[in-house]
Amino acid sequence: MGNIKITVVGYGNIGRYAVEAVQAAPDMDLVGIVRRSGGEAVGGVPVVADISELGQVDVALLCTPTRSVEENAVKYLKMGIHTVDSFDIHGSIPALRRTLGEVARQAGKTAILSAGWDPGSDSIVRALLEACAPRGITYTNFGPGMSMGHTVAVKGKAGVAGALSMTIPLGTGVHRRMVYVQLEPGADLAKVTADIKADPYFAHDETHVIEVDDINLYIDKGHGVNMTRKGVSGQTDNQLFEFNMKINNPALTSQIMTACARACTRQKPGAYTMIELPMVDLLPGDRDGWVKKLV
Amino acid sequence: MGNIKITVVGYGNIGRYAVEAVQAAPDMDLVGIVRRSGGEAVGGVPVVADISELGQVDVALLCTPTRSVEENAVKYLKMGIHTVDSFDIHGSIPALRRTLGEVARQAGKTAILSAGWDPGSDSIVRALLEACAPRGITYTNFGPGMSMGHTVAVKGKAGVAGALSMTIPLGTGVHRRMVYVQLEPGADLAKVTADIKADPYFAHDETHVIEVDDINLYIDKGHGVNMTRKGVSGQTDNQLFEFNMKINNPALTSQIMTACARACTRQKPGAYTMIELPMVDLLPGDRDGWVKKLV
Repeated sequence: MGNIKITVVGYGNIGRYAVEAVQAAPDMDLVGIVRRSGGEAVGGVPVVADISELGQVDVALLCTPTRSVEENAVKYLKMGIHTVDSFDIHGSIPALRRTLGEVARQAGKTAILSAGWDPGSDSIVRALLEACAPRGITYTNFGPGMSMGHTVAVKGKAGVAGALSMTIPLGTGVHRRMVYVQLEPGADLAKVTADIKADPYFAHDETHVIEVDDINLYIDKGHGVNMTRKGVSGQTDNQLFEFNMKINNPALTSQIMTACARACTRQKPGAYTMIELPMVDLLPGDRDGWVKKLV
Repeated sequence: MGNIKITVVGYGNIGRYAVEAVQAAPDMDLVGIVRRSGGEAVGGVPVVADISELGQVDVALLCTPTRSVEENAVKYLKMGIHTVDSFDIHGSIPALRRTLGEVARQAGKTAILSAGWDPGSDSIVRALLEACAPRGITYTNFGPGMSMGHTVAVKGKAGVAGALSMTIPLGTGVHRRMVYVQLEPGADLAKVTADIKADPYFAHDETHVIEVDDINLYIDKGHGVNMTRKGVSGQTDNQLFEFNMKINNPALTSQIMTACARACTRQKPGAYTMIELPMVDLLPGDRDGWVKKLV
């Protein structure tokens, strides 16, 4: 079998890292980048406005904003191309899975959705820990790291020229919001602070707003998670589990999407979240080799 | 669909905990315990010398010693019963998987092998971290906890009446062996110590031998693991991952076997290690509910 032919759709933060991840994969060829504006080739990889300008494509990595995932996935599936996305609106995942499942089965193709780290690899850990201790409580503690949703909410406030909302884990799933704002000339910090604290994104969390001169000096792409479960295996209490990571956020997201592109080629047609995939299908090469190495 | 009908084969350390795990599962019925000697019913559950004395059985949990797994699994698969084992001789897993795979496919049944915590749940974490950071190093650090294999090796030495070998993690996969021995009258501690340190089980590790009066006062079933991976996602270095647990060893092993009994009923015929199973298949009830809850 030849290499898997991949296209990266969208060339923002995730898309740029996805190009690197696909190029690092031993069993993939990056055949092109699709972005609305087209553009010059990137390191020898063609950039096109429409995927029809490329030859055969096996899998499209959808690195566009979450809100356009469904439209893009449906379009590419109907063209006979597997899709992978990192759709991250947790409450809307079951509906997206149903929609893409129908389209995918009709097209005889596979969609893997919500393939990032949360939802994504964290979901796998949550499922594994449920199996290890079916009774108990799992806490997912995010950060320290930049929250995209909260940052966008702050940027929308009057008087804010630039913003960064950091998520700080306080344990047991409780988070503090550290909000850094660069104000427009004449804006009032007290007024901006009140606006932020009244926003539904922040109203229920401990929130601190800090004025800075140049927001660009505060932004980095690091993020992290701490997950814990204390629960019961059979009838034995106090089984303790913990998963931690400190990672570059877009690098990990795009790496996981790339691994899922491989898994697309190994499933029956349909739509899958990561807890529905065998782990070995994420890895290159033959199954027997990984059983020998990892089990 | 009715509940899954389970039998626990072997009633030693793991078997006793397996009974509890199956009884705690909402979708399983424990129809009997198979032990060579037969015996009186345990809490209303029949104990039989031969599985033919029970009615329909869907899955057999093989809680017998690792060395008898193959013989038992082949026997039950040929009787049309799915099997789950916690076979833990890492180097022999590929061969066992081939053997059981052929038998299982011919019987139209499923064998899940090496379903414990290592091999088992740790294997899943190792596979997930390979997908998250394909270049890098994973370390599995065991303990503190009792090593069955090392303890048995010490018990075989002349002059040893009782023994406990504790595995102590020193990081980067290096382990110290703390060996507690109860000597037979007249035995020489220096001689026993030299024998232990010369044994291939201990020759390559830092080993300390300590004499105690009553070995039973030193044994507990707690164990643990610390796994780390530092690696590269795409072309981004220094991605840091860590998994920790502190658990009752037989309780977790038997809980994982029980979850895999459920997964048996959801796979195509064949033999599987845990990295070849979708996580959601380990969990009771319908897939959609778990996607909504965990993803």
